[in-house]
Amino acid sequence: MKTDNSPARGTRDLLPASVATRDRVLGLIQDVYRRFGYQRIETPALERIERLTAGQGGDNEKLLFRILRRGLDERLPAETEVNGLVDMGLRYDLTVPLTRFYSQYRAELPQPFRSFQFGPVWRAERPQKGRYRQFHQCDIDVIGEASVLAEAELIEATTAALAAVGLSGTTVRLSDRRFLSALATAAGVPQDAHAGFFVTVDKLDKIGWDGVTAELTGDRGLDASVASAAREKIEALADLPADKVAAVLADVVPGLPSDVVTDLATTAECLAGLPCSWAFDPTLVRGMGYYTGQIFEITHPDAAGSIAGGGRYDELIGRSIGTDVPACGFSIGFERIVDLVAAEPPADRVAVLYEADVPVPQALAVARRLREERGGVVSAVKRGGKFPAQLTRLEGWGFTGFLSLKADQDPGEVRPLGKS
Amino acid sequence: MKTDNSPARGTRDLLPASVATRDRVLGLIQDVYRRFGYQRIETPALERIERLTAGQGGDNEKLLFRILRRGLDERLPAETEVNGLVDMGLRYDLTVPLTRFYSQYRAELPQPFRSFQFGPVWRAERPQKGRYRQFHQCDIDVIGEASVLAEAELIEATTAALAAVGLSGTTVRLSDRRFLSALATAAGVPQDAHAGFFVTVDKLDKIGWDGVTAELTGDRGLDASVASAAREKIEALADLPADKVAAVLADVVPGLPSDVVTDLATTAECLAGLPCSWAFDPTLVRGMGYYTGQIFEITHPDAAGSIAGGGRYDELIGRSIGTDVPACGFSIGFERIVDLVAAEPPADRVAVLYEADVPVPQALAVARRLREERGGVVSAVKRGGKFPAQLTRLEGWGFTGFLSLKADQDPGEVRPLGKS
Repeated sequence: MKTDNSPARGTRDLLPASVATRDRVLGLIQDVYRRFGYQRIETPALERIERLTAGQGGDNEKLLFRILRRGLDERLPAETEVNGLVDMGLRYDLTVPLTRFYSQYRAELPQPFRSFQFGPVWRAERPQKGRYRQFHQCDIDVIGEASVLAEAELIEATTAALAAVGLSGTTVRLSDRRFLSALATAAGVPQDAHAGFFVTVDKLDKIGWDGVTAELTGDRGLDASVASAAREKIEALADLPADKVAAVLADVVPGLPSDVVTDLATTAECLAGLPCSWAFDPTLVRGMGYYTGQIFEITHPDAAGSIAGGGRYDELIGRSIGTDVPACGFSIGFERIVDLVAAEPPADRVAVLYEADVPVPQALAVARRLREERGGVVSAVKRGGKFPAQLTRLEGWGFTGFLSLKADQDPGEVRPLGKS
Repeated sequence: MKTDNSPARGTRDLLPASVATRDRVLGLIQDVYRRFGYQRIETPALERIERLTAGQGGDNEKLLFRILRRGLDERLPAETEVNGLVDMGLRYDLTVPLTRFYSQYRAELPQPFRSFQFGPVWRAERPQKGRYRQFHQCDIDVIGEASVLAEAELIEATTAALAAVGLSGTTVRLSDRRFLSALATAAGVPQDAHAGFFVTVDKLDKIGWDGVTAELTGDRGLDASVASAAREKIEALADLPADKVAAVLADVVPGLPSDVVTDLATTAECLAGLPCSWAFDPTLVRGMGYYTGQIFEITHPDAAGSIAGGGRYDELIGRSIGTDVPACGFSIGFERIVDLVAAEPPADRVAVLYEADVPVPQALAVARRLREERGGVVSAVKRGGKFPAQLTRLEGWGFTGFLSLKADQDPGEVRPLGKS
């Protein structure tokens, strides 16, 4: 008999060493977030299909795993529409469930509500290296706080969490959707072309200015003069010294609301006290359509791309309850940072190596006594094969010490394993 | 606009207080299991449909959530078989994924492999009170250990984990599938009727002997003499004093293999040293078809039914790799025990209550300093509404202290909240 025992296509199993590292990283992050007052919530993996296809998920909605209705027979019902067979789907992010959660329980939640979420999400991606159909997201959100206290605290908590897992030396890249809109308008981009304009500008680090200009004047149908005005403004704002941003912004983007500048200055002042650097980045867009204010990402010297990202989304909860509620979130790229941190250091781990004729109750009692007296991890393992070979195997499995247990003899001492 | 913000039918959201209790319970359990050498692994929620419908899942296979193939168009393809539209499903337990995992990675895993799993599983149950379509399982398994060292250690670790969360005074109910087979044979139940016989006997605590006898002679088609012989044997074995089991078993069930009695005696000897009581239970069956040896459950005075259950399944991994590997597992009913433990005690939690005109950087800096100097949880909360009413709200949200922060004034001291 031959069976394929690999995980389903596009998914992966996590072996003990990998889980141990992930658990340690999560524990450190969670402890920092907890100290700021973020409270963990959990929502189910399954959401009603209407909620997952209401337009809040952007492109992720195209990657939805849909679940067949319960009770469908072997033969299809009369309907021939795929969606008629489906009533639930797997969540593709933690933001759509959070807005539902907040809308449902807001009367009993603190104001503002500081939420922490960690859990798997699913996307029907075409399988490729390093991209999985199930992965974990790690989000904090502040709901009910209109001022940039939310943004500044989210950034402070996230940089502190990253520092706690050993990722210091981070840089915060900061922008604002209101700034991007004003910039587009000032450059002559019609209102209804803003979204497409942002998507193209977002690609600057991948396709360069030649690519961006070609796409703006091609697919986006903008005049060459508009594209070059946009480029000129963005370049005037790129790589500005932190203390110059406020002054230059107002000059380069006429019509920019003054609170955008004030908010950026306030966030910058908050960041000044933190052990991270920051930069205003006029090309930062972020993918989701729901952002309404400041947007931000964190980069780290050891990682290509960002390791965290977020922003303000003041109009998303209003779609669920009919009244807008200010909200802002920051998501750590958990799968990315796990790859950046050092593996779990080996724990104290002793094997009680018992001969086959040792009575089971005695083997377990010796292990129990060691566990109580000595601490650390203690497991009973039967003697088998050549002694040195077995010790080598034990070491390969992460054991750091062993104790020989023979029938009718007192147990020996714990002896260290390992070549060191 | 009116939107339904409740979770999908049959699922539930977990609010912060509930998550905090669950996290504490899980942490205590995991720490005990870790000390025994159990290593946490994770498998994806999605498994290939073939694996989930191969007969290993018993009745749970009927409760499978099936996932639509990626790339299905709005209109159905030519096929009209529901299963043609499906390539994956959501796992309904952690045992089927574990056997796949072990089969795939056994060359790199310790021998024996002690696995710990905690994670959600999904079953398309008809929604009813207290039964959810997504719930968490908490399993330990020993793979590669043929002796009852596995059983005895699993029981020891599980009772220790339950004691760690405050559930002491537990009773272990013990039986053996090999004993049940021998009993059925001795009572005159034909081999091919054993499985149905077990299912009926399993209902004894629900339907009593009258119900069992009626079902055995009715649906199961057994002679009345067979049913009464079975009842006689089971009653002779019920409520036996622990030290009498071995002797009586061999008398009542002729043909019982001697190693079944030896194994029971050994497990009993191991249990004798633990802070739990135990009983041989001739009516214990457990639902899954894959058990091959000892089976066990744990009960607690505060809970109806069992709070943990498991057993030996030596032939399950063989279905994946063609060679049997001895295996034994024990699963804590996590959702049940969470309901039995006390709620999380309130943590030290301070609100920095800042007036609206306090600059954001100052409010965050005061919170940061408190967090560093004082420890505990510190969150910035804006002053609003009447002061006493806001303090009452803060207390309701779990805050234990507050500090007033006014513009142009030094922050005051942290003052306690609460009526006590």
